[in-house]
Amino acid sequence: MLIQTLDLLGTFVFAISGTLAAAEKRFDVFGAAVLGFVTAVGGGTIRDVLIGNTPVGWMRDLSYLYLILLAVPVSYFFRTYIQKLRRTMFLFDTIGIGLFTILGLKTTLAIGLSPAIAVMMGTVSAVFGGVVRDVLSREVPLIFREEIYATACIIGGLCYLALRKLGVEEDWNTFITVLMVIAIRVVAVKWHLRLPRLTK
Amino acid sequence: MLIQTLDLLGTFVFAISGTLAAAEKRFDVFGAAVLGFVTAVGGGTIRDVLIGNTPVGWMRDLSYLYLILLAVPVSYFFRTYIQKLRRTMFLFDTIGIGLFTILGLKTTLAIGLSPAIAVMMGTVSAVFGGVVRDVLSREVPLIFREEIYATACIIGGLCYLALRKLGVEEDWNTFITVLMVIAIRVVAVKWHLRLPRLTK
Amino acid sequence: MLIQTLDLLGTFVFAISGTLAAAEKRFDVFGAAVLGFVTAVGGGTIRDVLIGNTPVGWMRDLSYLYLILLAVPVSYFFRTYIQKLRRTMFLFDTIGIGLFTILGLKTTLAIGLSPAIAVMMGTVSAVFGGVVRDVLSREVPLIFREEIYATACIIGGLCYLALRKLGVEEDWNTFITVLMVIAIRVVAVKWHLRLPRLTK
Repeated sequence: MLIQTLDLLGTFVFAISGTLAAAEKRFDVFGAAVLGFVTAVGGGTIRDVLIGNTPVGWMRDLSYLYLILLAVPVSYFFRTYIQKLRRTMFLFDTIGIGLFTILGLKTTLAIGLSPAIAVMMGTVSAVFGGVVRDVLSREVPLIFREEIYATACIIGGLCYLALRKLGVEEDWNTFITVLMVIAIRVVAVKWHLRLPRLTK
Repeated sequence: MLIQTLDLLGTFVFAISGTLAAAEKRFDVFGAAVLGFVTAVGGGTIRDVLIGNTPVGWMRDLSYLYLILLAVPVSYFFRTYIQKLRRTMFLFDTIGIGLFTILGLKTTLAIGLSPAIAVMMGTVSAVFGGVVRDVLSREVPLIFREEIYATACIIGGLCYLALRKLGVEEDWNTFITVLMVIAIRVVAVKWHLRLPRLTK
Repeated sequence: MLIQTLDLLGTFVFAISGTLAAAEKRFDVFGAAVLGFVTAVGGGTIRDVLIGNTPVGWMRDLSYLYLILLAVPVSYFFRTYIQKLRRTMFLFDTIGIGLFTILGLKTTLAIGLSPAIAVMMGTVSAVFGGVVRDVLSREVPLIFREEIYATACIIGGLCYLALRKLGVEEDWNTFITVLMVIAIRVVAVKWHLRLPRLTK
């Protein structure tokens, strides 16, 4: 129940982030809805397609679709308000990637794929919606040169696998993993941590 | 039969539109063939992959492949002629999106997915070939800021669902839906209708 | 055995090519790993998704993942050395597309699709990793305006089909096809052969 709720919350926040990106690019409302949609479900969709879990998830539960469509008018009417809420938005987004990481991990493990692939698919679920958003709006995907973002998901995923091996109860493990992703991300942003570049 | 014919016609016109875009970007003939191909089958392919209808459609009926390959020399030799035919091309393209909308809708309903998803997949079938074309040739996807294009497909799809509920006979419904998409598109272009932007 | 080895070698070389592209774009190490990954497995992944061969290949054999991750430090520490090895890199890359072409062909034929589609999927396997790399790093995909690259794969694929029809033994045919792709590519680069453009 909690997971379901947080998943929907994450979806909603991601949709708003996509819609606001569309507004900045001066897309029309259709473009905004599409960009909101791909940002919110893009990561999970790529995961589902790669692991062969089709029709993809959001086709089987319409809550996602309706929630994302709701994000367009919300972004429009509460725009000024949302921009003041940058902190809240950041927190929602961070909760979102935490949740999407664990959901992607569990979905992948559930169909019998290996733990290493599950960590990858958790990360893909969390961050590739943003990659598709950036490609469609012609930005260099942010995750390729920004702060610790995908890295938080990877560490979170590894942590989940380790705790599972140690026999930690599933619900607790889920909770700890999500918190871990959130904590890493928050600390990274606060302290301006970055991954090194390949070139000096 | 009519649908099959119009589907192939739509495919051919879309392939020519992709090939001409490649010519403008000074791609070589291979690039032109690829861009023609993704424009023509990209939307249907994305739909098939998302709903799990694989191998994707054009792999099972080679007419599409041959027709698209034919579009390259046709674009090359009749280039000047085609550009004078802008109106005819526009009409073909519009018939194409009408047809692709209804084909996408029916394919999606046929595998038991919900009507809302079917409307989405109809629209994806019609317009995402153009999105992939634009991404590969580094344009901001046109549908994100242009006239009523995808919107015509969405309205057409909703119309189809409504008429089906009212018990309108399938073939008639198909015919009306395609006409509806075409009419909306033609009117929108003639009167320069646009969707509002999210920013004022 | 030989094929497996060469496949892994091709994967490794493609991963290094992606990683070096990331370094030029000043991506961080995560971005470099992702770009190395999509360059190495992108083509085969698109093929697998289109033909419905999911979960995609590299999820079922972790050697690919580990090899690609290894490419990041290798690129980093041996950067100067690798750049001096341009010729060796070029040869590896060329062996890579030869191998990926034949692997894509065989995989597609094995699930019963037609020879024409198999030639396409062989080419997609060989060159679309590079397309995805270019889209993510915001380059116009090189294959669309460069020398004979994909064309070598197409000719190699047709050659394989012809020899198979003539009853040439499978292993010999594989060997000849790979050599053919390599030879065409090497000759094309040496003599600066290009495909004609659609515009004069």
